[in-house]
Parts: sequence; structure tokens; C-alpha cells
Amino acid sequence: MNIILASTSTLFGGNYLEYLKEELIELYDGIDEIIFIPFARPGGISHQEYTQKAQSFFETLNIEVKGLHEFEDKVEALNTAKAYFTGGGNTFLLVKTLHEENLMTVLKQNIESGKPYLGCSAGSNIGGQNMKTTNDMPIVYPPSFDCMGLVPFNINPHYLDPNPELKHNGETRETRIKEFLTQNDVKVVGLREGNWIRRIGDKITTEGSEMTRIFEKGKEPYEIEAGNRL
Amino acid sequence: MNIILASTSTLFGGNYLEYLKEELIELYDGIDEIIFIPFARPGGISHQEYTQKAQSFFETLNIEVKGLHEFEDKVEALNTAKAYFTGGGNTFLLVKTLHEENLMTVLKQNIESGKPYLGCSAGSNIGGQNMKTTNDMPIVYPPSFDCMGLVPFNINPHYLDPNPELKHNGETRETRIKEFLTQNDVKVVGLREGNWIRRIGDKITTEGSEMTRIFEKGKEPYEIEAGNRL
Repeated sequence: MNIILASTSTLFGGNYLEYLKEELIELYDGIDEIIFIPFARPGGISHQEYTQKAQSFFETLNIEVKGLHEFEDKVEALNTAKAYFTGGGNTFLLVKTLHEENLMTVLKQNIESGKPYLGCSAGSNIGGQNMKTTNDMPIVYPPSFDCMGLVPFNINPHYLDPNPELKHNGETRETRIKEFLTQNDVKVVGLREGNWIRRIGDKITTEGSEMTRIFEKGKEPYEIEAGNRL
Repeated sequence: MNIILASTSTLFGGNYLEYLKEELIELYDGIDEIIFIPFARPGGISHQEYTQKAQSFFETLNIEVKGLHEFEDKVEALNTAKAYFTGGGNTFLLVKTLHEENLMTVLKQNIESGKPYLGCSAGSNIGGQNMKTTNDMPIVYPPSFDCMGLVPFNINPHYLDPNPELKHNGETRETRIKEFLTQNDVKVVGLREGNWIRRIGDKITTEGSEMTRIFEKGKEPYEIEAGNRL
């Protein structure tokens, strides 16, 4: 496999995908066209608007982007594609659409055969075992929470440390992930913004500017540095 | 109906249910025993531990608390109860348990017949039309997102205003609720901590120390003051 699962598409104060540019040149080496999966629709924007956003960035790498929504036969489109990118937004909407159109397994099989994949945020969640560690609001009801399992763990994108100054009793991210572990025995990788997971063949590492926080059932959470294997 | 749906059980720096004490004396007037529904299990604590927490508070009102988990026949327990309290925690876990044990409709019917109900946080979410505006992590997969619909809208508990100083690209609460409205035409009541919804008969008002933020499809969000009808 040849994949990147990133916490976010955009760093604070940065431009779309800018911080990942060098990585993406390597990921999509020799590729001149990718399929963009726009179904997570951040802020409810249309599939077309979202695809144009991806196109604007990938033009700078001389890579053409086609939105998966444009194809009559989406299974065929995935099977003939050279590489993929799934953008962020609402994970429930993304997973519902992929399952209802029977695309989750097709995408998984193609990525497992070696085609490059980039996921950001919701697009990274679907690379995990299931979507049970998303931060998103359940605005629609998917037929299943199962995802592609491109890595043997779950991802929590936009991982955020507790803010001791916040006078608010909503749960912290860490509390939520610990609640997940009371009901599931799946490792969770808390990916801070600026970090991503890189898988090349069987080697899975955490990369980027931040430490990565790992949660496992029955253990205290711990941190690993960029470049380490997961 | 005679219900309170509160944003939170506990204000920052306060004790459990303390800020609602006068309201609860009125809600449970003449009641000496209530059923506590502990299934949301905040932080993964046991049903028994959670029930004890509720018992400690309600002792001060001379009200006895029995945990619903203690009963062999939970439908019978709900039908013979005098009043209810559902505590906060994880809404997915709460809704999954209520649906799987066929308790959601039984609880709804009893509350609609006039028995007093208090919900906090997840316990308030289930008073809405559905749980699609919860903030919780989807740690388990419920058979449905439908809730009791004790009020003709959805609730977003622990409503939090955007923090302009946060250098983080996760979605704000307002963005999430607007995404919900792209997929659903249901009014959402953003309940800040310190606020609650009061329903007495057909009269539904927002109460508490804060303004309440309302979101409707095709409208700009707006604020209403405590004491106003919803």
C-alpha cells in the first residue's frame, strides 16, 4: 500500500494542502490524474464546488482531478482510476454515501492493490477500522460504521489536547476516546493537526511536526515521535 | 407534560445538579421516588456507580432513586415509576441501550402521560426528535438515531460559541449544526451551559442564565432570552 492519512487538509493560517505538498509529490509520483471523493461535503458545499477546490491545488502539481460524483458508474470509475483523494467534512455523510453506493469495499480493494490514497480528516477516518472515533456530528444515519481498515487501528483526526482554561463541562477529546475504549478494543491514534500517517507497503509510520498520542485499552495514553512505526 | 431538558448536570466549579435544585423541587413536587436511567455511562463508569451519584443528590430532596438497570423487567419498571431522570454521558450508548431493550417508546408514552422527566446532556438529547445533533463520539452503533420527540425540535447541549483564539481547524459547533441543516429540516436549540428547556403542558420555554441560540433551515441563527417560548 501507498497511503497518507492526514489529520487535516489545512493548517491554521496556511493554504489548502500546502503543508503536505512535498509528501504528495512523492505519494503521486508518476500519476497525472486522480479521483477525488467529495462526499463529506464540508459546510454542506456541493460536490462540484468541493472538487474545484481540490482541482485548484492539484493543478500546481500538474495532476488532473475528477470528482467521483461526475461518473454514472462509480464502481467502474474507482476500478479504472490511478489514485485517490478523499477530502474532509462530515464522516457520517461520507460513510453513508460510500456504503449506500457499495463503494467502500471497491475503494479498499483498489488501495490494497497498491494505488496511492490520500485522506484528510473524514477521508482519514475511513482508512481506519471503523468511524467510531470521528469528531463529527451524526447528521445522517449510515447503514454501518465499518470503514476500510487500511491500517490496524482507528484514527482521531484534529486531535486536541484538553484546555485547562476552558470553563465548560463538555467532554474532552481524551475522555471521549477513553469512553470508546470501554466499548471497543481497537487502538486509537490521536493525530494532532500537522501530523499524518504514512503507509508504504507494510511499514506504517507517524509523520509531521507534532507528537502523536496513542490510546489502547487498559493502558495509559502515550506519545510517540514523528518517524516512529505504528 | 412536565419536563426539564438541561444542557448540563454540573456548572463549572459547581456541584452535581446544584444549580437546578429549586427547579427540581418544583418538577418533582409530591414525588418521593424516581427511576434513574444510567445507560449513558459518562467516562465508562458502571450503572451502579452512576446511580449512586444521582442518589447522593436526590437524598437532599428526600427523593429515593432507583437505577433502571436494577430491574429484571425494565418495561414494567418504567410503567410503574412515578418520575424519571436520565443522566448525561454518551448519547450513542444511551440510545442504543434504550432501543435494544425497547424502552424508548415506553419512556416516551409515560412522559407524555404527564410523569415528570429530567434529562441532562445526553438525557436531553433523547427528548429531541433525534440524536443527530449530539456532540458525542459514536463509540457504539445504535439501531436508530430516533428519539422521544418530547419537544418539536432537536437539542444541542453544551452549546459552545466559536473561540476566535483557537488555532485549530476542527469544525466549530455552529458549522456542525449548519451541516445538520443541509441534510435535515428540524429546528435546533443550542443550549449553553446554565440553560434548560422547560415544558409544562403545551408551554415550552427556554430558562436559565444564558441566551439560547436557535438554528433553522434557511435562516440566520438567532438568540432568544430566558423565559421566552420556543
